[in-house]
Amino acid sequence: MREIADWIGARLFGDGSVELRGISSIAEASPGDLVFVEDERHLERALASRAAAVIAGEFFRAGDWKPVLVCDQPRLAFARAAQRLATKRQRTAAVHPSASLDPSAECGAGVSIEERVVIREGVKIGQRTWIGAGSVIGAHAILGEDCELYPHVTVYPGVRMGNRVIAHSGAVLGSDGFGYVRDRSSGRQEKFPQVGRLEIGDDVEIGANSTVARGALEVTRVGRGTKIDNLVHVGHNVEIGEDVVIAAQTGVSGSVEIGDDVVIGGQVGIGDHVRIEAGAILGAQSGIPSKKVIRGRGVVFWGTPARPIREYLRELAALARMAKRR
Amino acid sequence: MREIADWIGARLFGDGSVELRGISSIAEASPGDLVFVEDERHLERALASRAAAVIAGEFFRAGDWKPVLVCDQPRLAFARAAQRLATKRQRTAAVHPSASLDPSAECGAGVSIEERVVIREGVKIGQRTWIGAGSVIGAHAILGEDCELYPHVTVYPGVRMGNRVIAHSGAVLGSDGFGYVRDRSSGRQEKFPQVGRLEIGDDVEIGANSTVARGALEVTRVGRGTKIDNLVHVGHNVEIGEDVVIAAQTGVSGSVEIGDDVVIGGQVGIGDHVRIEAGAILGAQSGIPSKKVIRGRGVVFWGTPARPIREYLRELAALARMAKRR
Amino acid sequence: MREIADWIGARLFGDGSVELRGISSIAEASPGDLVFVEDERHLERALASRAAAVIAGEFFRAGDWKPVLVCDQPRLAFARAAQRLATKRQRTAAVHPSASLDPSAECGAGVSIEERVVIREGVKIGQRTWIGAGSVIGAHAILGEDCELYPHVTVYPGVRMGNRVIAHSGAVLGSDGFGYVRDRSSGRQEKFPQVGRLEIGDDVEIGANSTVARGALEVTRVGRGTKIDNLVHVGHNVEIGEDVVIAAQTGVSGSVEIGDDVVIGGQVGIGDHVRIEAGAILGAQSGIPSKKVIRGRGVVFWGTPARPIREYLRELAALARMAKRR
Repeated sequence: MREIADWIGARLFGDGSVELRGISSIAEASPGDLVFVEDERHLERALASRAAAVIAGEFFRAGDWKPVLVCDQPRLAFARAAQRLATKRQRTAAVHPSASLDPSAECGAGVSIEERVVIREGVKIGQRTWIGAGSVIGAHAILGEDCELYPHVTVYPGVRMGNRVIAHSGAVLGSDGFGYVRDRSSGRQEKFPQVGRLEIGDDVEIGANSTVARGALEVTRVGRGTKIDNLVHVGHNVEIGEDVVIAAQTGVSGSVEIGDDVVIGGQVGIGDHVRIEAGAILGAQSGIPSKKVIRGRGVVFWGTPARPIREYLRELAALARMAKRR
Repeated sequence: MREIADWIGARLFGDGSVELRGISSIAEASPGDLVFVEDERHLERALASRAAAVIAGEFFRAGDWKPVLVCDQPRLAFARAAQRLATKRQRTAAVHPSASLDPSAECGAGVSIEERVVIREGVKIGQRTWIGAGSVIGAHAILGEDCELYPHVTVYPGVRMGNRVIAHSGAVLGSDGFGYVRDRSSGRQEKFPQVGRLEIGDDVEIGANSTVARGALEVTRVGRGTKIDNLVHVGHNVEIGEDVVIAAQTGVSGSVEIGDDVVIGGQVGIGDHVRIEAGAILGAQSGIPSKKVIRGRGVVFWGTPARPIREYLRELAALARMAKRR
Repeated sequence: MREIADWIGARLFGDGSVELRGISSIAEASPGDLVFVEDERHLERALASRAAAVIAGEFFRAGDWKPVLVCDQPRLAFARAAQRLATKRQRTAAVHPSASLDPSAECGAGVSIEERVVIREGVKIGQRTWIGAGSVIGAHAILGEDCELYPHVTVYPGVRMGNRVIAHSGAVLGSDGFGYVRDRSSGRQEKFPQVGRLEIGDDVEIGANSTVARGALEVTRVGRGTKIDNLVHVGHNVEIGEDVVIAAQTGVSGSVEIGDDVVIGGQVGIGDHVRIEAGAILGAQSGIPSKKVIRGRGVVFWGTPARPIREYLRELAALARMAKRR
């Protein structure tokens, strides 16, 4: 307990010798579990639960309770405590005999490569990285340390990723962008070369069945700490900054620039060559037409075409009034 | 023929000894095929086709025709007849030698496990369940009887599914939900633990490349008989009722509750903590903002933010008039 | 150089003996690279770059420069030159010993079948077709010549594809359509048979994690030269014409007809039984309600429900004015 308190930087009230064995929600807590409350209203319920200890915010007032760990950001503290307490999926630091590694591939110490994985020539894999069953790593791809690739991830040739990158099952990284040239004489579409690279920064997480294209001639980049949900599409030549959050099923067209700390809701559509400056927030399902610039740290945009949310809500209200008038 | 008539509960007109060998559309019928008509207008064409017999509604009036099977719900009757007549994909009740089964996995009688399947420790698989080539079943997952997992399905650890569940290729079941906590001091996103479960009821079908997240600390549930199309996203801690229908590319955010018999069109977006009560209908591309409650059996909602369709259509009409006026 | 000039049909200015070794963007050009400019504004930068030669439009005026290849459609010429110059991914014309081929499968000369591929009974594969690691080809599927299936493509039984078809990783071709019949007495959904076929024409490209359903009783068709981006859904019984372009995350419901040369933006939703006539253009995120007909070569439609873009923009402007008035 005391060790966890130190790890998350919390003040400990009560018996520091209690042993913590896991984490849980308040409703499902078992003896030995650690739970958390962000809001004073839930504190009593947490204290009355079967949990061994509670993380709480500064609102906590000492009393004759079970042990409480008090800190400024209880949800964050819980997330960090979970790194120590949550059951880790077991991974053997070994290469399964059914995996195919090209002899030129280099694997760092402690890598875990599961059944049927295919690793091609020139690939480099950092220490302790885990590659789940059936994943395919294309030629000359470079993976950092402590990465986690779940089963059935496909990495196209030449992709580079930093350390602690997580890619969930079905993610396709570095596939061809969608680029064609229409021949004016025949009317047919001919494939434009898609031979650029994809570079993914440290601490990026990419959701299940998401797709991130390589550059056409240039580089697609996903910056450090950016989190991408499931079924998201990122087109070619896109540049995404750091600590960006992109919810499920959003689509980012080619040559888009997204600044640091941008937050993008689900099912947002971003047209090609759009620039979204640092800190902007795009509401779910909003749409940004090609070449637009979206600007304003902390400003929420909504609708298609996306406009500041106050404007959009005013329009919705005006429309509702007008429809009633008749 | 007579056997099929009994199976689907239809009254037989004409020669009951004709042998049925398959099903087809009216246009492509071969001798031996069974076809159906729901609408009197198509009856003549069906009777004139090469089909051996016709399922028709109560509108049918006896005459000197080919055999006709008359019943109340012809389309349903046809679907049921197809279970007997359509060519079944052949599956050998065996474990392919290239599959990897952990010694602790338990397989019921008659299971069919194809090439390269990976089954981890503690997995239990019910009788006659089929697991297509290359699928990966994570530790301690439990699959019921008569399930069908097409090639390349990924089941994360601990997922539980009932009987007769169908999952199409590329479906990812039980992957991590999208949950992070922003550290106010560093501005970085830290991963919130995603260690809950996913439970899928009997008779659920999940389309190709759809993703259903496990709970964060709690459980994501998909109720009996619910049908989910391709490329659908279901977030963590979602509770979906029974006999719900969700069309392609719809996204369901975290902690949403969906009641029984709800019908959801394609590309619908549902914000977190929304509650959709039993029997509501959401039109394609509609969007439900976070925390809203949608209520009304048989009521159709449309637009973003979704409103009753009559209201929405009135607004569209008012807008069109206004734009013309200038 | 002269050989490339002939291949793309360009007039050569300058030294035709220079050896070209690759392609690149202007910014990243190395000696030996070929670059292109479509717009006179970028010509000077191209000529000053490290590239060995430049493809330019008719705007080029001869001078004492590096070699220039002048032609009518420079972007198209560059795409064609890239077929000769871009580094080809190396593929061994062989069947990897870890692949499983049914003895009844027929493979043309020069096919390349990678690790863990599964090929079922009755499959036919044309000459020089490449099937990436882990892909699964269902029974009786027919693949043409020079096709490229990236790792983890799933082809359901009976699918037919022409020559030079490209399918990216995670694409699922020929899975079941989304068809159920609701039993009025029990309220339950029963599966309607999904036993039709999927036919894909020559020169089609299908993006990563896209899904194309087989017909229910009939045939789903994708016409010659059509290009489909990532995460696109195509439902059952759909008929798509030739040279159609469909951007990412668009969904096409069942029984839709799409004419030749239609261009569809990203995240468009098309309801069932819609007909989109040849040459129409659908803006990103637009939505077409069931059974509508969209008509007009070169006419752009936008919004939900989609209307001609001029109309839609007029409505948006009227709405903005009205909201300000109050």
